[in-house]
Amino acid sequence: MQRSDREERIRPSWSQWRAIASRKSYRVVLAVVMLVSVGASRASAQTDPLPSWNDGAAKQAITDFVTRVTLQGGADFVPPAERIAVFDNDGTLWCEQPVYFQLAFGLDSVKALAPKHPEWRHQQPFKAFLSGDKEGLASQGEKGLLGLIAAAHSGMTTDDYAVSVAGWLAQARHPRFDRPYNELVYQPMVELLAYLRANGFKTFIVSGGGVEFMRVWAEKAYGIPPEQVVGSSGVTQFKIGADGRPLLTKLPKVEFIDDGPGKPSGINRFIGRRPILAFGNSDGDQQMLQWTAAEPGARFLGIVHHTDSAREYAYDRRSKIGKLDKAWDEAVQRGWTVVDMAKDWKTVFAFEHSNTGALQ
Amino acid sequence: MQRSDREERIRPSWSQWRAIASRKSYRVVLAVVMLVSVGASRASAQTDPLPSWNDGAAKQAITDFVTRVTLQGGADFVPPAERIAVFDNDGTLWCEQPVYFQLAFGLDSVKALAPKHPEWRHQQPFKAFLSGDKEGLASQGEKGLLGLIAAAHSGMTTDDYAVSVAGWLAQARHPRFDRPYNELVYQPMVELLAYLRANGFKTFIVSGGGVEFMRVWAEKAYGIPPEQVVGSSGVTQFKIGADGRPLLTKLPKVEFIDDGPGKPSGINRFIGRRPILAFGNSDGDQQMLQWTAAEPGARFLGIVHHTDSAREYAYDRRSKIGKLDKAWDEAVQRGWTVVDMAKDWKTVFAFEHSNTGALQ
Repeated sequence: MQRSDREERIRPSWSQWRAIASRKSYRVVLAVVMLVSVGASRASAQTDPLPSWNDGAAKQAITDFVTRVTLQGGADFVPPAERIAVFDNDGTLWCEQPVYFQLAFGLDSVKALAPKHPEWRHQQPFKAFLSGDKEGLASQGEKGLLGLIAAAHSGMTTDDYAVSVAGWLAQARHPRFDRPYNELVYQPMVELLAYLRANGFKTFIVSGGGVEFMRVWAEKAYGIPPEQVVGSSGVTQFKIGADGRPLLTKLPKVEFIDDGPGKPSGINRFIGRRPILAFGNSDGDQQMLQWTAAEPGARFLGIVHHTDSAREYAYDRRSKIGKLDKAWDEAVQRGWTVVDMAKDWKTVFAFEHSNTGALQ
Repeated sequence: MQRSDREERIRPSWSQWRAIASRKSYRVVLAVVMLVSVGASRASAQTDPLPSWNDGAAKQAITDFVTRVTLQGGADFVPPAERIAVFDNDGTLWCEQPVYFQLAFGLDSVKALAPKHPEWRHQQPFKAFLSGDKEGLASQGEKGLLGLIAAAHSGMTTDDYAVSVAGWLAQARHPRFDRPYNELVYQPMVELLAYLRANGFKTFIVSGGGVEFMRVWAEKAYGIPPEQVVGSSGVTQFKIGADGRPLLTKLPKVEFIDDGPGKPSGINRFIGRRPILAFGNSDGDQQMLQWTAAEPGARFLGIVHHTDSAREYAYDRRSKIGKLDKAWDEAVQRGWTVVDMAKDWKTVFAFEHSNTGALQ
């Protein structure tokens, strides 16, 4: 056989391709698809989908669970439409220290808006906050703080509110890490979200935080679109503005608190299916974990345990923010997966690998 | 050239396929993909995605809009993630005559539950309803009717409620068509939903109906999963049952009415993005249509106009249920698409083509 003849057989011409494809298109496609898939699965077997997780029981529990529920024909197989995964946000997907970031935003908003509200200088709780009277502010309790923030945003349109959140993220810096707050997302959890989605899961945030606050940045940070963010909300009012354009205005009235026993109600109302995977970090997530665990079938229940004062913060068992007490006892008793941040996470924040990181 | 030689060139052996694929895999895949896609697009050009729609302005407006927003590089291109389409349910996706189907369910529930509640025989509004006292019931107004239904389901768990909706659908029949209520879905709208999803849209129900009532059957009827159903809701309460299992119980307290000006609030809270397509049929949808229309960019606003007494019902301009008055004026003034059911729909219900249809 001549060389040119051999080449011709190995590389069919375009007209031959057409002939092959039209006469035997099914077989051709099948063959190519098989070759391509063999290549792809070899490549993925070599690539760790969770590179920021250290090998250990927590990582193994995650990958075992995903393997079980996605194995077609297996005893624990779950159809893709039912692969619902829910994640708390503060302390589970991003940092919540030294204060909830939404509280930092709210207090910065009050300061920024104060010049337009001279009356605040004489009204509590604004007066205490603006004059730096920490004791006076503390005497208003948590409710006073939340009232302060709700009042500050009251009367804003939902569009203006989103703009103000984005503006704050663009300029505010975390006091310890000197980074924009939305860089304080946990890299291992970002990888876990992507890994679940690659395995046919639909990932949701179910957080006590404000739904409109989170939606501004959640898609970019986590790949979770606005319609998969469940959170607390205030009442909004529809009206036609002076220019004839319809507006939604924020009222200073709480509509729904998506925390503690509110989380199963939020899941029921917004998602309408029972999750098969839930991740939290505090007692505020206990009922969401119980609700997820309650149906038969394979379930994954995870808790992020904050043990890393060097890279993040060590707190939670006796902390005021993110207290992990009753949910801890239940996790230990029922064998839920507790992720020890110091031990299980190779990387906490993506910026740790950057030269300009202000990590202490 | 011998015959066997020619065959060998046209049909490479498995080892030759491997050699081709490994040496020139990109070109091979590309060629096959091109041939396959040419075939696929030829096939789809011949298949009308909206076969139950008659040719005319309404159908044309729909396909023109979808073509414009999906044309990569075109002036009106919208990325898939932002292709949010919202649909009212009663009178838009399924029939709402002679009464809202959820009301029929509620009244049937009161009758079914009455033997367990002897006290209802002496309590209004139950007494009037159960004794057939239509005047007494009418005197309670719409609020009385809704109160009746809410009271009937109060204290049920969300799981039991879903079971009771499914049970009702399995045995109840529409008084005119003698069909299960969930067969009274409009076939042209089912096709429209599928056509939009095939073009990268995410389809949502945004209805004044109860979210837990709709979710039981919406996925099968429309291909819309539970997490894409927005509706009115009552408060639910989380508790741990006597057997240690967590439960959500329905309380007789309205949480949110997703109707009229509530629809933009519902869209804001549940979806968190501005839709680019909205379809309704009554004044209760006017604010949803206004909210969808208000942002710049290509928009589709549609109204189902009930004109077909032979195949469905002719009502709406002056009707009590599904009144189309203010939204009609705005649609005419702003050039929104009004679908004339008698004229624009070739088929109304899928069962019209069945031999056992009780169509009058």
